Amino acid sequence: MIAWRTIGVLGGMGPAATVDFLGRLVAGANAPQDTAHPRVLIDSDPQIPDRNAARAGGPSPGPALAAMARGLVAQGARVLAMPCNAAHGWADDIRAAAGEAQFIDMVEATADAAAAAGARAAAVLAVDATLDSRLYHRALEARGIAVLEPDRPAVRALVARVKAGERGPALEADAAALVATFAGRATHVILACTELPLALNARATIPPVLDATAILAAATLRAARL
Amino acid sequence: MIAWRTIGVLGGMGPAATVDFLGRLVAGANAPQDTAHPRVLIDSDPQIPDRNAARAGGPSPGPALAAMARGLVAQGARVLAMPCNAAHGWADDIRAAAGEAQFIDMVEATADAAAAAGARAAAVLAVDATLDSRLYHRALEARGIAVLEPDRPAVRALVARVKAGERGPALEADAAALVATFAGRATHVILACTELPLALNARATIPPVLDATAILAAATLRAARL
Repeated sequence: MIAWRTIGVLGGMGPAATVDFLGRLVAGANAPQDTAHPRVLIDSDPQIPDRNAARAGGPSPGPALAAMARGLVAQGARVLAMPCNAAHGWADDIRAAAGEAQFIDMVEATADAAAAAGARAAAVLAVDATLDSRLYHRALEARGIAVLEPDRPAVRALVARVKAGERGPALEADAAALVATFAGRATHVILACTELPLALNARATIPPVLDATAILAAATLRAARL
Repeated sequence: MIAWRTIGVLGGMGPAATVDFLGRLVAGANAPQDTAHPRVLIDSDPQIPDRNAARAGGPSPGPALAAMARGLVAQGARVLAMPCNAAHGWADDIRAAAGEAQFIDMVEATADAAAAAGARAAAVLAVDATLDSRLYHRALEARGIAVLEPDRPAVRALVARVKAGERGPALEADAAALVATFAGRATHVILACTELPLALNARATIPPVLDATAILAAATLRAARL
């Protein structure tokens, strides 16, 4: 009577974003009791080589992500998810290591959700590694959605504050202010860094936000359900 | 420059309590950036045989917990923690399977914290399996602390509501009311079921509560720090 395939989470990028993602898996399972939840294996490893540094010529996170995927699959994972947008620049390494396990691509799932929401111009709030790799540019433009880039230092500052543990109204106001700079210019704002939902805390905004973490959690649960 | 031993979490009992525990590990690490966090491996398996049913003659969770511990250690865990009080009735199975990894005992850590807090009479809010195994009775009485038992059906009902996904003020009020029944009778109330902090949400109470999940997280981080 197990209704789920086991989910494997490539985590730790960052650690708080991994906890946020797990919380969404648990809430999204809509389970009336423990046994109706999926088994979830998590490797939360904050020593994965930095994605932004790698784009700037540092060591690639690809081999470490591939090893992490192999470990999760060896432990029984059949559906893999990685709550880090920037690390999707190395998604091919993960897919190559995943064997028969299915890797749920956060960027593709979010671009699908943007198209389904009727987005015509999407602001992509993401760190440099994500923007420079043009992951979201390609996925959105392939669906006829124009891409607007954010003020990069502003995103970087918000992400660093979340990673340092800051939470609360001052952070939330700054995140909401960044979203509001796109009013009248973008139909939607994509939270394309997994630290950002921890800053914005699901506040209603104009333009409306699409939360890539929430979209990945929902797509992962759909794929894992037998 | 890795300042931590890898932490392994025997989880899924229940899934939301595991997320709560992970959140406390992340917050408690007090890390200024990702790389200053510990690596955490989690096996959140909601199919571990039910602890209450096992006490009533059902299948033992011992073999499954031992297998889970071996899996976590094989993946690199050197400090093990299990955010489920009742499952500590099978802690010997875990210790036997843990090899050189250190198992942090939630009941012992909480009894130590109760003694350090000057508790003289502690109400143990726990499910039947925990109370019937006398885990807390033994640990507290060994430290000269008297044990008061709760209204068992009231605890059971709160835990079931948390496991079914309920959160919010109605649940919190009922949890606070249960704690308040010990005013004038207990010096401290121990939240000795990992679902209960999700109901009570850190509200100030009389008597004051000792949260076994928070105590376990702190003890785990202390043991993992190199």
